[in-house]
Amino acid sequence: MTFTQRLRKVQHKTQSLLCVGLDTDPALLPRGLSGMPDGVVSFNRAIIDATRDLVCAYKLNLAFYEAMGEYGWHAMRETLAYIGEGVLTIGDGKRGDIGNTADQYASALFDDLRFDAVTLNPYMGRDSVEPFLAYPGRGVFLLALTSNPGSKDFQRLKVGSKRLYERVVHAAAGWNMKKNIGLVVGATHPRELKHVRSLAPSMPLLIPGVGKQGGDLRSAIRYGCDAEGGLAVINVGRSVLYASQEANFAEAAREEAAMLRNEIEVYRKQFFS
Amino acid sequence: MTFTQRLRKVQHKTQSLLCVGLDTDPALLPRGLSGMPDGVVSFNRAIIDATRDLVCAYKLNLAFYEAMGEYGWHAMRETLAYIGEGVLTIGDGKRGDIGNTADQYASALFDDLRFDAVTLNPYMGRDSVEPFLAYPGRGVFLLALTSNPGSKDFQRLKVGSKRLYERVVHAAAGWNMKKNIGLVVGATHPRELKHVRSLAPSMPLLIPGVGKQGGDLRSAIRYGCDAEGGLAVINVGRSVLYASQEANFAEAAREEAAMLRNEIEVYRKQFFS
Repeated sequence: MTFTQRLRKVQHKTQSLLCVGLDTDPALLPRGLSGMPDGVVSFNRAIIDATRDLVCAYKLNLAFYEAMGEYGWHAMRETLAYIGEGVLTIGDGKRGDIGNTADQYASALFDDLRFDAVTLNPYMGRDSVEPFLAYPGRGVFLLALTSNPGSKDFQRLKVGSKRLYERVVHAAAGWNMKKNIGLVVGATHPRELKHVRSLAPSMPLLIPGVGKQGGDLRSAIRYGCDAEGGLAVINVGRSVLYASQEANFAEAAREEAAMLRNEIEVYRKQFFS
Repeated sequence: MTFTQRLRKVQHKTQSLLCVGLDTDPALLPRGLSGMPDGVVSFNRAIIDATRDLVCAYKLNLAFYEAMGEYGWHAMRETLAYIGEGVLTIGDGKRGDIGNTADQYASALFDDLRFDAVTLNPYMGRDSVEPFLAYPGRGVFLLALTSNPGSKDFQRLKVGSKRLYERVVHAAAGWNMKKNIGLVVGATHPRELKHVRSLAPSMPLLIPGVGKQGGDLRSAIRYGCDAEGGLAVINVGRSVLYASQEANFAEAAREEAAMLRNEIEVYRKQFFS
């Protein structure tokens, strides 16, 4: 099964396009877990228990784990083991390096940590992406138009009649022989999201930027989904993780995640049925 | 002291522009260290002992260490501690992420691992770079034109009258208020290296691609150095690390490094005195 097919299947089974970003900051752990030896893992487990039936995927941003050194690597491994099968895991590291080095990153993320998908930065071109594409059933989300202010600095530059991020979309579509490439497009750019979906009608789109960053969920669903109302992965991090910093943090996270998932379902019915 | 000043000082003191890339692959360790519990650290220590007086910097590509999981993090830490002061350390991770995540990467690389400099990918723009620029005395090398074949896919695209990598050079020069930004330009592109040096006459240039990748050392020095014959950091990895896979690997590495360093000095004298 291709990664695209896997994603479609998981979204169908879970009836959810929601992805919770487990970007756990030890400095923001709720009272009771803060400062505990395995606090980050305990926190992640509680969030996973509270949201597992509401999501199609969990995304771990590697920066947060690397900032914890060796323990971070352990915490990532424990968290991934706890997630187990049934939903997808995305290793958000935005890596990109020359061929023989990309082999090492692919090995770290796919062989060792066993993520189902990763995010990659396209700047170094095709040979920086290819080693990841060789893994059957695994997926790659290439950065196209990111959710941050700096996305204007290079991604929107005009290259002939196209913008740079459009060139990335075209290149990605050309490299997608195994149907295992998706794109990252921020919800903060609804018009461009619509445009990318028109250029890549059947590629998975990972859509960050809803919530704290100001992206609109309704537009993300309307413009980010494929014709069947799927293949958009809506990532939400801080607003779920830190819905409460009290003892009820897990219930609060569940409430927030359920609210977002249900809102997504309302828009899916509105636009795709 | 700015990072640029630090680099100049170290290159003056060591009389070397050579950087050895400690991209240690456990599968390529010499007989005797292969399969040993702390084989990678022992190997790195032996290479460092053998080359310390010949280099201005060591560069660790994070991919190789991440592929070893928790042990890799430990190995990186031990290696950096062993390098100590006197030469610079470069964490080659090519990171790039939105502001609050870039904070975490900066913390991992500068606070925890304590690299003197890092490599960053410019695709996500200014806010993905800024957190790193806040560290006094530390440096950032932004990818401009990389040494690999995929550098043609996006980096060379025409943006108006300029190429994308030239736009990166211009942007980097504009962000360089604290004189702590350098650029990565592959030795495999001598003409463009000359051009980048003309656009950025006093920025450090990290130059990979000499050796196995086919870049020419003479051109790298001629075109990569500033007017005083410095601020180019010539990275060489595999040809030093794996000069021999026998028991004499450290002496062989020293020989290769000494040869390269001396060749660099010949070209510096030829072009800059």
